Amino acid sequence: MNITDYMQQTGRLARAASRAMAKADTATRNRALLLIADAIVRDAALLRAANQLDLDAAKAAGLDPAMIDRLTLSDAAITTMVEGLRQIVSLPDPVGEISNMKVRPSGIQVGQMRVPLGVIGIIYEARPNVTVDAAGLCIKSGNATILRGGSEAINCNRALAKIVAEGLAGAGLPAHGVQIVDTTDRAAVGAMITMPEYVDVIVPRGGKGLIARLMAEATVPMIKHLDGICHVYIDARADLAKAVPVAFNAKCHRYGTCNTMETLLVERSIAPAVLPRLAELYATKQVELRADPEAFALLAGYPHLVEAVEEDWKTEYLAPILAVKVVGGIDEAMDHIAAYSSKHTESIITEDYSAAMRFLREVDSASVMVNASTRFADGFEYGLGAEIGISNDKLHARGPVGLEGLTSLKYVVFGHGEVRN
Amino acid sequence: MNITDYMQQTGRLARAASRAMAKADTATRNRALLLIADAIVRDAALLRAANQLDLDAAKAAGLDPAMIDRLTLSDAAITTMVEGLRQIVSLPDPVGEISNMKVRPSGIQVGQMRVPLGVIGIIYEARPNVTVDAAGLCIKSGNATILRGGSEAINCNRALAKIVAEGLAGAGLPAHGVQIVDTTDRAAVGAMITMPEYVDVIVPRGGKGLIARLMAEATVPMIKHLDGICHVYIDARADLAKAVPVAFNAKCHRYGTCNTMETLLVERSIAPAVLPRLAELYATKQVELRADPEAFALLAGYPHLVEAVEEDWKTEYLAPILAVKVVGGIDEAMDHIAAYSSKHTESIITEDYSAAMRFLREVDSASVMVNASTRFADGFEYGLGAEIGISNDKLHARGPVGLEGLTSLKYVVFGHGEVRN
Repeated sequence: MNITDYMQQTGRLARAASRAMAKADTATRNRALLLIADAIVRDAALLRAANQLDLDAAKAAGLDPAMIDRLTLSDAAITTMVEGLRQIVSLPDPVGEISNMKVRPSGIQVGQMRVPLGVIGIIYEARPNVTVDAAGLCIKSGNATILRGGSEAINCNRALAKIVAEGLAGAGLPAHGVQIVDTTDRAAVGAMITMPEYVDVIVPRGGKGLIARLMAEATVPMIKHLDGICHVYIDARADLAKAVPVAFNAKCHRYGTCNTMETLLVERSIAPAVLPRLAELYATKQVELRADPEAFALLAGYPHLVEAVEEDWKTEYLAPILAVKVVGGIDEAMDHIAAYSSKHTESIITEDYSAAMRFLREVDSASVMVNASTRFADGFEYGLGAEIGISNDKLHARGPVGLEGLTSLKYVVFGHGEVRN
Repeated sequence: MNITDYMQQTGRLARAASRAMAKADTATRNRALLLIADAIVRDAALLRAANQLDLDAAKAAGLDPAMIDRLTLSDAAITTMVEGLRQIVSLPDPVGEISNMKVRPSGIQVGQMRVPLGVIGIIYEARPNVTVDAAGLCIKSGNATILRGGSEAINCNRALAKIVAEGLAGAGLPAHGVQIVDTTDRAAVGAMITMPEYVDVIVPRGGKGLIARLMAEATVPMIKHLDGICHVYIDARADLAKAVPVAFNAKCHRYGTCNTMETLLVERSIAPAVLPRLAELYATKQVELRADPEAFALLAGYPHLVEAVEEDWKTEYLAPILAVKVVGGIDEAMDHIAAYSSKHTESIITEDYSAAMRFLREVDSASVMVNASTRFADGFEYGLGAEIGISNDKLHARGPVGLEGLTSLKYVVFGHGEVRN
């Protein structure tokens, strides 16, 4: 079978399974999740053996240590996976909830029912834990799923897929409710993102290169973000006892995450007080500061100081590097953000009520914060219970996406024989 | 200036205006709507004169009477437009509302704020009233707008655009908050649907040909529906006193609308009772019935009876034609709907509680009804107060779309200096 035919077949099976997944009650979907969790514990040795095949091949192919690390299914990783599934069981079921019910003058009652999207496609790197996390969230939200993990994890993913299929079947759900793409051929991705008749939404998880390629080629809608160029703006009336730890945390808590601050904006009158204090902290982490002329002058003597160029305002460093700019006030800060932000997360540090309210209302990003670290932009920190990804788009799901982002609302009408006049 | 440059310039102006539109308070946006309404009343003679130029050209070009009718800006149409604007003023403002606010263990407070989408592009036929309706909804929801009406209405749309721009400026809003595409060149549409940097969403209103073309070419997301192949299923335990009037209304109230029933499914045991009674009513309207073999036998003698072929189950007639099929029960009915429905609106007629609940939960359409005519699938009937369009897609807005569909939710975080550990 060629790849296109194989993917079409996978899509047909997923679409057929999606109806049974959608109508299954909460207890059935939770039972499947618990069966999968138990089977992972039972088959841990088998899973580690399958993973070892992947690791041997990866080492032979000379993969870098970070990729090997993500590919490794350690005992701790298995425990985390199993705990994750049990947490998903404990989350409230989003499916079937009816809201906004009202009686209309015609006599009909109208409301909205939360329902699964149908078929979710997940495209991700060689991280076996994502296979289980993503399958769990899609099962809980009543969707069928097609999982396309990085080819380096194919042996481990096959073993996990077998466990998931058995868990589904054990609970009376279709074994094809979760399928992995069982080929390492890259053409499978191209087929998967261009079959809207079988896939309702794609969630891509991976580097910017992957996302950019999918954006150019996909005809299936995506829940995605391309990058996170996040800003912290320290306002004239900032409390330095908040500004300094927040700006340090937003940059240095983790460098490689999309909600890490990449540009710091500081109001002119407070800059001489705040920048030297921050520099002391950044110096302890050898953070390189790329400063505009005003900030550069205030940071004179900092050991890792570079003059910023235009490209710096557009760059997601994902590294101990920070662009720094002095601005005249909140309007100039918001103009800079409107011009350069990737619309992921921005935070203002201020004690000025009106400035805080303006920033919240006017900044057009998925998360807008007052006096908090951008690092909080996260499904768990926001209390969603789980996170399938983060969206920078404005339609459907925006910001951290949990179970609700894997559902849709349809209108339901309770009538009594009404006809329209 | 070539068309691409012109549209890019239009997009840049819209994007710039969108920030001022989004931050304007409710009173300012309502003031603009009232100024526009007053100016339409004041300049009615000018508008009719501009419309007359369009009508003269349309008649000279031999446009069909239905198009001429939609193009005509009568006194009554002007009154309706003005009343529509004043109704939009009276609708609650969706913008700025914060919901789901909760305190997290970290100390941050997280909620979601409803905000404008940014720039809305509307593509529609030569109907000057849509120019004002769409502008009104976009102004109310805090969006900037680019309106591309059918070229036959260009003179009238220019006159309306001038009034709208003056109304915006009079309220202190940017005159470019609403722009019409001031060219009849069709390339403008192609440019508009492929500039996601300037347009956040396209709402196409028009025939299936237009929508299909846009779906193939657009890189900007759309709020749209391609067609409405709506079903009514009369269950074994239907109350005939409801089934007959609903099935008659769903087909015959209006033929050309997307929520009109195109296929009637009838359960086998009730078919001999219901089909002849319905046939009596359909006969009064000369409705052609395209029947499967079982229904054909039960309808023997009906004056406009045709044997259904496979294509009939896939056809949106928009005419006094109805496909009719006898099924074995709710499962066969839902299988047929899953196979052939355009996922717009389906209704079950039944007194059986469990059948009603299964149909509501399992049918995957934008509107699912019990004992009501499909003709109720409409923004006004659902109480949305207004309707910009109807969506058959599952993401973002589904079913009739009012002001809320022109907005998005962003996360807002109120912090007190919290950092992530």
